[in-house]
Amino acid sequence: MKELDNNLLLTVLNGGRPVRAPVWIMRQAGRYLPEYMAVRAQHDFLTMCRTPELSAKVTIQPVDAIGVDAAIIFSDILVLPEAMGMDLVVEEGKGGPRFTNPVRNMGSLGTIHDADCSKDLGYVADAIRLAVDALNGRVPLIGFCGSPWTLLAYMVEGKGGEFTHARAMLYDDPAAAHRLLEVLAKNAVSYLKMQFSAGADVVQIFDTWAGLLPPDLYEEFSLRYIKEIVQSLRPEIPVIVFSKGANHSLEAIASTGASAIGVDWTVPIGEAARRAKTVVQGNLDPAILFSGKEAIESGADAVLRSAPQGKHIFNLGHGIMPGTPVDNVKALIDFVKRWRYQ
Amino acid sequence: MKELDNNLLLTVLNGGRPVRAPVWIMRQAGRYLPEYMAVRAQHDFLTMCRTPELSAKVTIQPVDAIGVDAAIIFSDILVLPEAMGMDLVVEEGKGGPRFTNPVRNMGSLGTIHDADCSKDLGYVADAIRLAVDALNGRVPLIGFCGSPWTLLAYMVEGKGGEFTHARAMLYDDPAAAHRLLEVLAKNAVSYLKMQFSAGADVVQIFDTWAGLLPPDLYEEFSLRYIKEIVQSLRPEIPVIVFSKGANHSLEAIASTGASAIGVDWTVPIGEAARRAKTVVQGNLDPAILFSGKEAIESGADAVLRSAPQGKHIFNLGHGIMPGTPVDNVKALIDFVKRWRYQ
Repeated sequence: MKELDNNLLLTVLNGGRPVRAPVWIMRQAGRYLPEYMAVRAQHDFLTMCRTPELSAKVTIQPVDAIGVDAAIIFSDILVLPEAMGMDLVVEEGKGGPRFTNPVRNMGSLGTIHDADCSKDLGYVADAIRLAVDALNGRVPLIGFCGSPWTLLAYMVEGKGGEFTHARAMLYDDPAAAHRLLEVLAKNAVSYLKMQFSAGADVVQIFDTWAGLLPPDLYEEFSLRYIKEIVQSLRPEIPVIVFSKGANHSLEAIASTGASAIGVDWTVPIGEAARRAKTVVQGNLDPAILFSGKEAIESGADAVLRSAPQGKHIFNLGHGIMPGTPVDNVKALIDFVKRWRYQ
Repeated sequence: MKELDNNLLLTVLNGGRPVRAPVWIMRQAGRYLPEYMAVRAQHDFLTMCRTPELSAKVTIQPVDAIGVDAAIIFSDILVLPEAMGMDLVVEEGKGGPRFTNPVRNMGSLGTIHDADCSKDLGYVADAIRLAVDALNGRVPLIGFCGSPWTLLAYMVEGKGGEFTHARAMLYDDPAAAHRLLEVLAKNAVSYLKMQFSAGADVVQIFDTWAGLLPPDLYEEFSLRYIKEIVQSLRPEIPVIVFSKGANHSLEAIASTGASAIGVDWTVPIGEAARRAKTVVQGNLDPAILFSGKEAIESGADAVLRSAPQGKHIFNLGHGIMPGTPVDNVKALIDFVKRWRYQ
């Protein structure tokens, strides 16, 4: 295990016994943090992703500003499909990132190719190296990618929303979906291995749109490919799997061999831990950060009491929302760090 | 029981034995139907809600156009809060309906008053009377309202989205939330009784945003008030309760005394029926209607085989999406109507 000043996260992921729960926050480098917004005011979102110095800079900001126990590399899950032939754009004020060339059928699958990670995603590896240097052993760094299903959802739909066409593909042309998912899983493995080689200590697979699928389709079209990825990375690389909204399948997610599973805020984390029988990460409702300090501390306390000691990574149940008062985030992190195990 | 040419829905809701599953579709009067879009091209959305002749006209369209076994009055859940003091607007091309005066604290609760249903929502009763006349006993008519939690979510937030402020209120000022929910439940009862008196045969409570809440908050802030409403309407008025995304609480929803419970597409309907032990309504994935006829029929067949015969109302697992090919909807309805019980 790498020597770090703060080894809490890696201790939990490796089955050790920490003195308290490590804490980090999904989207912690983002639009609630004044330091981030100052950089963002000067550069568009994709430029920040693609410029290693900028990516590394905002990656480290929350470690200094709010005192989290891990950094997560600043990037976007859609840069992998971009490197596989999708045309990614972000137009200011027009919602999130989108693809101009959505994949709608087996024919348009022809535009998809394997990513040349070291060439086309080398900027992510460079950002990781810069971030690791700048962190200088203070806390571990998390790498990440999207799950094959979540990436397919964006690639087929072209943009965020209800992902109607992506869901329809699963019913209408499951063979095309499986072909695309297989390619995505293979490329995700290469991409995550590159991130680990560059210095990431842990990787997380974000399956943000798992909750759009009923349990049988989730197992066939999402979990199966997540498991392929996990099996290709373990045991060398610690992997956290977060299938948001797939609370029907927590046992199955744990059975992928993941080091930890993410839990959204709609299931009690104690129940999730009992069912998954592995390390759980989560799951405070991100909306609670818009309430007062007393309510925030009470909510965090409930999560910490409910989760199994030593097998819990404190986090929100989904990404922190733009506009979250930064003082509330600091109060939360301070509270969790004061909450010691007996 | 009222004499209707097509009594399938009421037979199922009253515990009788139908020859096949009745079928209707949430948002069946909506933006996939050419007949609807022709009316919509001439009138804005709220004008259609507020003009009994227009509302009744589009209410009946899907009975003629796609052959459903029930009509549902064309309206919007937000007209009740409007009658209680909220300022409701719909700006073309700017997303869905919104309130210009969101309720953010106990202070702004003062603007909320009981609706004078016969005066301020008389247009809904008039639309129901016109629709019942025009239906002339062909199929039953469904009335509806939003659940107190779902209405609170819009009233506090002002618009659709992640409902951050509404969720935060539950943590930060539960007393204010309960006060508002109590008033909403009381007004929903009056509003639904008025709809029944005007000729609606059944009412449905739409709890569209149930899935934003973990089980404990769902029971405290949503289900409790739904139960109050159901208990005030039963046994005279048949009530369907649809708490979308609350699959953790199907047993509890059934225990409200509802005549049937709606089931979204992310839980197998057979499992939902076994857990709820009551009539279930649903639950084909609305996205399947963007695939081919074979996939649609196969999906519908799976729902019909999985659901308990005679205790099932066929529907989608959520509202039909704008842009759904109308021929696919017709093919679905025809398939369900050919599927006879043994």
